[in-house]
This record gives sequence, structure tokens and C-alpha cells, in this order.
Amino acid sequence: MTQSIRGVLAPVLTPFKADLSPDEQRSIAHCKWLLSQNCGLAVFGTTSEANSHAADERAMLLDSLVAAGIDTSRMMPGTGCCSITETIKLTSQAVKLGCAGVLMLPPFYYKEVSEEGLYRYFSEVVQRVGDTRLKIYLYHIPPVAVVGITTGLVERLLKSYPNAIAGMKDSSGDWNNTKTFLDAFGKSGFDVFVGSESFLLANMRNGGAGTISATANVNPAAIYKLYAEWTNADADDQQAKLNVVRDVFGEKYPMISALKQAIAIYANDPAWRTVRPPLVELTAEQAKTLAAELKAIGFMMEVETLKR
Amino acid sequence: MTQSIRGVLAPVLTPFKADLSPDEQRSIAHCKWLLSQNCGLAVFGTTSEANSHAADERAMLLDSLVAAGIDTSRMMPGTGCCSITETIKLTSQAVKLGCAGVLMLPPFYYKEVSEEGLYRYFSEVVQRVGDTRLKIYLYHIPPVAVVGITTGLVERLLKSYPNAIAGMKDSSGDWNNTKTFLDAFGKSGFDVFVGSESFLLANMRNGGAGTISATANVNPAAIYKLYAEWTNADADDQQAKLNVVRDVFGEKYPMISALKQAIAIYANDPAWRTVRPPLVELTAEQAKTLAAELKAIGFMMEVETLKR
Repeated sequence: MTQSIRGVLAPVLTPFKADLSPDEQRSIAHCKWLLSQNCGLAVFGTTSEANSHAADERAMLLDSLVAAGIDTSRMMPGTGCCSITETIKLTSQAVKLGCAGVLMLPPFYYKEVSEEGLYRYFSEVVQRVGDTRLKIYLYHIPPVAVVGITTGLVERLLKSYPNAIAGMKDSSGDWNNTKTFLDAFGKSGFDVFVGSESFLLANMRNGGAGTISATANVNPAAIYKLYAEWTNADADDQQAKLNVVRDVFGEKYPMISALKQAIAIYANDPAWRTVRPPLVELTAEQAKTLAAELKAIGFMMEVETLKR
Repeated sequence: MTQSIRGVLAPVLTPFKADLSPDEQRSIAHCKWLLSQNCGLAVFGTTSEANSHAADERAMLLDSLVAAGIDTSRMMPGTGCCSITETIKLTSQAVKLGCAGVLMLPPFYYKEVSEEGLYRYFSEVVQRVGDTRLKIYLYHIPPVAVVGITTGLVERLLKSYPNAIAGMKDSSGDWNNTKTFLDAFGKSGFDVFVGSESFLLANMRNGGAGTISATANVNPAAIYKLYAEWTNADADDQQAKLNVVRDVFGEKYPMISALKQAIAIYANDPAWRTVRPPLVELTAEQAKTLAAELKAIGFMMEVETLKR
């Protein structure tokens, strides 16, 4: 953990078997493909249906990925649960395995909790994990978790745990919010990842660390290209092209189901369509429209290794 | 499970040790006291800080309560998690132990999920638990879970699983919503519990089954009295008196911390104050004001068995 993780990461989609259990083999293949595209692995994010898994299922899948040789220095597993006990367990596992960091949701059951309560929560986690290798990326996603990360909270946490609090993922969808965090903490080495590549260029121009974006599951190479070339003259053009792809997935379809559908199409593997309830896979009609729209914009996935 | 559970239940407060682990001995004592007051046990509700526990911690505490001789025919454990796997595990345990029913939150991480997705979730749980003794009480608490239970969902579930879908707890705080469910499903044996005793009389007058209320942790006898005597001439007076107590706890303080503080006061046991983050116990100043306000309204708890 000497070098902090930056760049483009995917909140890795979790393939399921017909009985809805995590499909380890397809997951390993997908992770390897993402790494081959210079895409880091934020396994167990919102897009991964992480909270639709038991803590034990997450722990087992992480062990399987590592056993399969997936590079932990490119991993940032999601470990934030509603209970400190589960969060501590999953975080400790990730740290022991050598993961570059962990992406940590605030406890999201109780709403309108105090900043003091959230501070105590994260503080308890840092202290009980008790490992100097721990790097926490706070996960701000108010449209889903409702409970959010405030500048006041980050300020207190950075003061108490300057080494453990490494950065954040901002999935507010509000650039002004991202800018506020960049301005407040960016210079002190607090790494801000945007939750959508639509803000990637703006983030890089303002000292951000990259993006952790759902769409990186299907469009990693182009997103990484902009990350690597953001100072180039064509950066705005690259950003505009990324937005075209993003808009197809995000605007008309439930995002997670649409991303799985896209892999099912390009890898010719219908098993990839499966989601866990309460999510629902795309209907046949939606799947057809999505395929047509992706074709219309010339979208491609080179996924030989995922083909069945 | 021949006779369905009705009346007054408490979402049982969970006492913690100094290291924040569940305090089994205090929990057993509290459950026994509640039973002695004619109050059933909805252990692992919102007031129980259930979602601040790992699934394993809930399972172990339930086993401990049963091992201590707590009557399972008076229990309705909360078993709804974000993942079907944990929900199924906890529900199966409760059914095998002979619990009267289970109180089931919808999966609450993803927001704006479809009715179809929620239907599939509950359907999967019923089928995988696969036990004719299963009695599910759907838990509608939109101020906290955000994801709610709709009449359309209940209609579909009742059609598919008329025996397993036994009723609901409505913690919307909106009497019109409760009335809608009573009118739609009350006559077909679907038991509606209100989430606050402030609606108890209205609920009984409209064919409801009782209440599962946070305040029953501290005021069970008086709430049960109204449940037993709701046809009496003084029912409205009884309701008004219950509301006075409820208002002290619910209006000025964080409810869960205030309820624990009250037990700490009347049982002379400061250990009862402890909550798990992200909740925060009352400040010394708040504790003092609460004590004074309870004294001012003549509130008492006869808790000899809880005293330390």
C-alpha cells in the first residue's frame, strides 16, 4: 500500500448462477478482462449488488478472486454495511489480503443520523481494524444510501486518522459537491473519485484521482484513455464520446440490469443477464432496444475471454 | 402457529455491553419483564438496532433468548435484510424455533425498485424457507427504510401465498395509509399492527390486530390495557394518556436513545444507555431533562427484575 490507487475502477458487476449464487468463474474472468483494460476493481459496490449479498458471500467471493490470482493492489472492495461488526470483518479481510483500499458506505439504515454518530462509527471501524495498511475511501451516494458524507465529517476523520482516511467516491451526481470536497481536502492528499465518468475530465482538471464508474464494466478502455490523456487537446472530444455511451445505459434503463445485458450480448452469454431481487433483469423488449441503440452509436466490447 | 399473534408487542431494545456486543443477560431479563406485562416480543426491529447487528449476532441472540426459556409463541423476530440469503437464513431459524411470526423489512438498499422486484424478493424468501409454519408480517416504515410496502404488492403476495403472508406493521405514521390497508385486506384475515400506540384505538375500531410500538418497551402495561379495553367507555381517555407518554419520548429526543435512558433511570442501571454507532446516547443534559419530564407527567416503570 505504498502507492495509492488512482485512475479508473469499475464497481465490478457480480454474475449469478441460475440459483442466484455468485458465479465465481464468470466473476474471475470479468475481473481479469477489466484488469487487461487498465481498469481497477471496486468489487462489491452498488453496481455489484453488494448489499444483496450476505457478508459471508462477499467474503467468500473475495477469497476466490484472490486465490485465482487477481492482483489485490488493483482492488478496492466495498466493505461498508449497516453494522460495525460486519464492516470491521470485511474490512479486516480486505486489508489482510493486501487490497489497495476499501470503499466504505456509511451505515445506511437509520436516516438523519448525526455527524457525531457517523464519526463514532468510522472511528470504531478504524480502531478495531487496527492495521496501518488500512486505506478507507468514503462512499457518498445519497440517491441510494440517503445517508451521506459531509465535509464536516471528513474534516474530523482526517484530523483523527490522517493515514487511514484516503479519499472518497462521490456519486452524488452533483459536480458542485465534488468541487467542494476537492477544494477542501484535495491538497492534503485526500483522493476524490467521481462516481460517473461524465465528470472525469472536470475531476482531473481540478486535482481529482479518477473515477469509479458503473459504465467502466463495459467501456473501460475508452474511459481509461481519457484518464491517461486528459491533458491532450482532444480531451473534451473524448469526454463527449464517453457521455454518449453513458447516456444509453443510464437514461432509459435500470443501469445495473442494462450493463449485465450488454455483457450478455457482447459475450454471447445470456447467463450474464441474471440479477438478484429486488432488481429485475431487462425485458426482452428492453434488451432488443438496448442492443439496437448500442449498435447505432457504434459501441463495441472486445470480450473474447468472456465468450461462452 | 395455530393461533395468530395479536395485541401489543415491543420492538425489543437491545442492551449492549461496554464493548458494544449484545448483552444477553440484560436482554433476557428485559424480555421476561415485557412478557410479564402482556407484551409480545418483536425482537430485532428498528428500535432494537437490528440492522446495526451482523446477521450472525442476531441469530446467536435469538438462540440465547430461546435457550433461556422465552416463549417463542410470543415472538415475532425481525428478519428482513438487504440480501435474500440473510433474510432466508434468519427467517428459517425463527420458523424452526417456533416463533409466532417474523417481521420482514423489504430489501432497503436500492431505492425506487419496482413492485415486480419486491414481489420476486418476498416470493423467493417464502419458497426457499419452504415451511408451512411461516407467517410473514410485512414491515412498512418509509421514514427509515424508504422502500415501502404497497397495496399492489400485498395483493399479489396474498394471492400467491395466502398462508405465509399474515399481516403487516405500518410505521408510516399516516393513519390514512393504515386505513387503506385495513379496508383492502383486513377482512381476509390480514393482520394490521400500527407502528405507534397513538393509533391503537383507531386501529382496533377499524379491525386492526394491535400495535408493535417502540414505547411498549417502557410503557407496556398501559398500552396493553387499552388493547384489552378498547370497547370500554374510557378508551379515548386511555388513548390520550398513552399519547402524553409517547410525546415525551418521541418529540424532543432521538427515540431509541431516550427509551434506553428511561430504562437506565428506572432500573438504576446506566449500562442500559449504550447504543451502537451511528446512534448516539443522550447527553447528560438531555438525560436530566428527560428524567424531569417523565417525573412531571407521573410516569413510572415497575422494573424490580431489571434493577442492578
